[in-house]
Amino acid sequence: MVEKRKPMAVREAVQSVMNVEYTPRQEYVPLENSYGRVLAEDLVADHDVPSFDRSPYDGFAIRAEDSAGANRNNPVHLHVVGEIGAGTVFDGEVKPGQTVRIMTGAKIPAGCDAVVMLELVHEHSDEEISIKRSFSPNDNISFQGEDTKKGSSLVAKGTTINPGVTALLATFGYAEVPVALRPRVGILATGSELLEVHEPLKPGKIRNSNAYMMAAQVERAGGEPVLLGNLPDDLEACTEAAKDALKKVDILITTGGASVGDYDYVPNILRELKATTLFNKVAMRPGSVTTVGETNGQLFFGLSGNPSACFVGFELFVRPILRRALFSQKPHLRKTKAVLGMDFPKPNPFTRLVRASLDDADGHFVVEPAGLDKSGSVTSIAGADVLIVLPGGTRGYEKGMSVDILMLEDHKGSEWPWENIVASYRS
Amino acid sequence: MVEKRKPMAVREAVQSVMNVEYTPRQEYVPLENSYGRVLAEDLVADHDVPSFDRSPYDGFAIRAEDSAGANRNNPVHLHVVGEIGAGTVFDGEVKPGQTVRIMTGAKIPAGCDAVVMLELVHEHSDEEISIKRSFSPNDNISFQGEDTKKGSSLVAKGTTINPGVTALLATFGYAEVPVALRPRVGILATGSELLEVHEPLKPGKIRNSNAYMMAAQVERAGGEPVLLGNLPDDLEACTEAAKDALKKVDILITTGGASVGDYDYVPNILRELKATTLFNKVAMRPGSVTTVGETNGQLFFGLSGNPSACFVGFELFVRPILRRALFSQKPHLRKTKAVLGMDFPKPNPFTRLVRASLDDADGHFVVEPAGLDKSGSVTSIAGADVLIVLPGGTRGYEKGMSVDILMLEDHKGSEWPWENIVASYRS
Repeated sequence: MVEKRKPMAVREAVQSVMNVEYTPRQEYVPLENSYGRVLAEDLVADHDVPSFDRSPYDGFAIRAEDSAGANRNNPVHLHVVGEIGAGTVFDGEVKPGQTVRIMTGAKIPAGCDAVVMLELVHEHSDEEISIKRSFSPNDNISFQGEDTKKGSSLVAKGTTINPGVTALLATFGYAEVPVALRPRVGILATGSELLEVHEPLKPGKIRNSNAYMMAAQVERAGGEPVLLGNLPDDLEACTEAAKDALKKVDILITTGGASVGDYDYVPNILRELKATTLFNKVAMRPGSVTTVGETNGQLFFGLSGNPSACFVGFELFVRPILRRALFSQKPHLRKTKAVLGMDFPKPNPFTRLVRASLDDADGHFVVEPAGLDKSGSVTSIAGADVLIVLPGGTRGYEKGMSVDILMLEDHKGSEWPWENIVASYRS
Repeated sequence: MVEKRKPMAVREAVQSVMNVEYTPRQEYVPLENSYGRVLAEDLVADHDVPSFDRSPYDGFAIRAEDSAGANRNNPVHLHVVGEIGAGTVFDGEVKPGQTVRIMTGAKIPAGCDAVVMLELVHEHSDEEISIKRSFSPNDNISFQGEDTKKGSSLVAKGTTINPGVTALLATFGYAEVPVALRPRVGILATGSELLEVHEPLKPGKIRNSNAYMMAAQVERAGGEPVLLGNLPDDLEACTEAAKDALKKVDILITTGGASVGDYDYVPNILRELKATTLFNKVAMRPGSVTTVGETNGQLFFGLSGNPSACFVGFELFVRPILRRALFSQKPHLRKTKAVLGMDFPKPNPFTRLVRASLDDADGHFVVEPAGLDKSGSVTSIAGADVLIVLPGGTRGYEKGMSVDILMLEDHKGSEWPWENIVASYRS
């Protein structure tokens, strides 16, 4: 009566999804719209920075040799032959005994090899200054290329654009920025129990929260969510909707109907679509009933209707595909370790992913499970910064033990977090 | 000749900015556009979750007492009197010896007090099942309110909306979400040396990178950047532009012209605007020439033209005002500790803020200065996840020492990070 499914290990399930080819694409956006997007090409310096020897201060450009022997009792007097405002240059060469007034960032004039800060100068008139100490050649000069040499690769493609990257893009003239095209991810909620968010509650019904939650997860991962609405439990309607959606989006996700009950249509939809089923059960909690199929190179994710199972299924299986589509070399959730801030007494026959909040005590990560850890729980997701990974076959964990965690609010990622997930031990 | 300025300690400078009143405002946006925005009101449960006793599995709802004594050799047979699909309810009461087929999430029918999973049932016909073990009352029931009680405050205002918060908003019917109005932050770059990003380089000139960088910083902090262009070093033009800008934006930032050179007009602009100068020098590196004024309740930030000084000035002084305008109770950069991954031999006569990249080794933060630590450097900003705070009056730091850090890519924040900034010690 009940279909038997063989659970696949998490790492194999993730690998089977990653084996499906997905070629990243790029587009150009104006620099001012590029914050938070992902670089589609390496950012390369097209010129030295600074692009000329320049003054780091407001002051006077001098020939260092002119200052030899200057001291408090024996100031050296120099003749001011010009002034260089920011953005202007001094034509000609500065001769012995001469100096030029110079602004921060301005180009050092020919003949000069040092800068005296304004604060160390006595200005006798517009044409004469004196200085009371000696300077060496190269004092107070920002040299051409000292920050960056032309041709340097500064930021790798696949990097999320932060304010510092923006500064570099501006410096190197990227008025239009090559960024990864955001994959379009269709989201289809199934289940006759679903109400729209604006509808009042009715007996036996719940509001559709998974679709909106996943739309936010898609945005966080860098994709473009396409909300395709709710469908009742009707195989034909669901199959038609899925077929239609696959023409409009790059990746399709459904929530609900992935289990083995009478109204769980995901296996039948995959059959109708002539899709290859990569797996339909994973040896993990929550999210064991996650089903993933592939049809003509497109991925179809049939996630659980339980909010937390849906949440975890997205982060483990959908996110890495999205990040790879954004040129990331580290498409998976970033893995590190943390100390458990409270007991977690449940045994773990299968790999368990516990939604948890991350804190730090003087630079050490501490995690605590966020609220009620049931797969039907919606409130615990709001406080979740990380997923704690408790390997299958382990007994309960105690406060103070070291655990593996996957970070949800991070754009750096991991290359492959699924090796060396460690069983319980005291830190 | 040169104006004397008295440097203010960082904490006093930040406090003087925070003393200026700024009343947060709110607006409503559709749920699907709310990801990444900040809640303007506490999110409160308007109903219990679950809102009724429901089944966590596909199976059969039974009266537990009917299963008393059932075992492998003595199965109990029950009469199937109905079926509850998701979203439907069973009218009437289930009598002794009766059972109802039930789907995951459906409401437990009257009379029943336990659920038997489909896998543990033998279905003889549409009308008859048998079970081979006994169940206790309340077995496999998700009780009304077990996740969340009506009236619970679930997420505090000032919280950035993540996917889990989105799920809660959907569950509680927030089709429109009250979010903080993003403060409009005007950005005006001054300096005759500035080229537009699309312009080719010319001798003595550089492209305007600070304005775009700060626009991204404003976005990261949750504000709305308004790019107001570049202005040459012309006092009248700059003053007019500032006056005009203050009518259009909530907060105004200029970059450049904040020092004490001939072309540094910020003090004069503030005078023309009849603004109160909160400070014009801060005992820190970089960013010592940061000037902040207030006019009719509006803040005017005169940040340095040096990219790194501008960057640091924004994060220390502008960001907390923006976060407070977004209802945050922890408006400052989040402070924690990290281990220094390399030597930092420079002495620190003033508090030094070092742009650094954050990594972690098994749950311990490790930081390394990001590239060349000069205030004119632009490349080092791209790799900066954190600012290391080295207190004034300390000598060089060695690899392995513990240092205070401020986290740039974090939305949780600190209430007040400026106490207990510690001097050098070994961890």
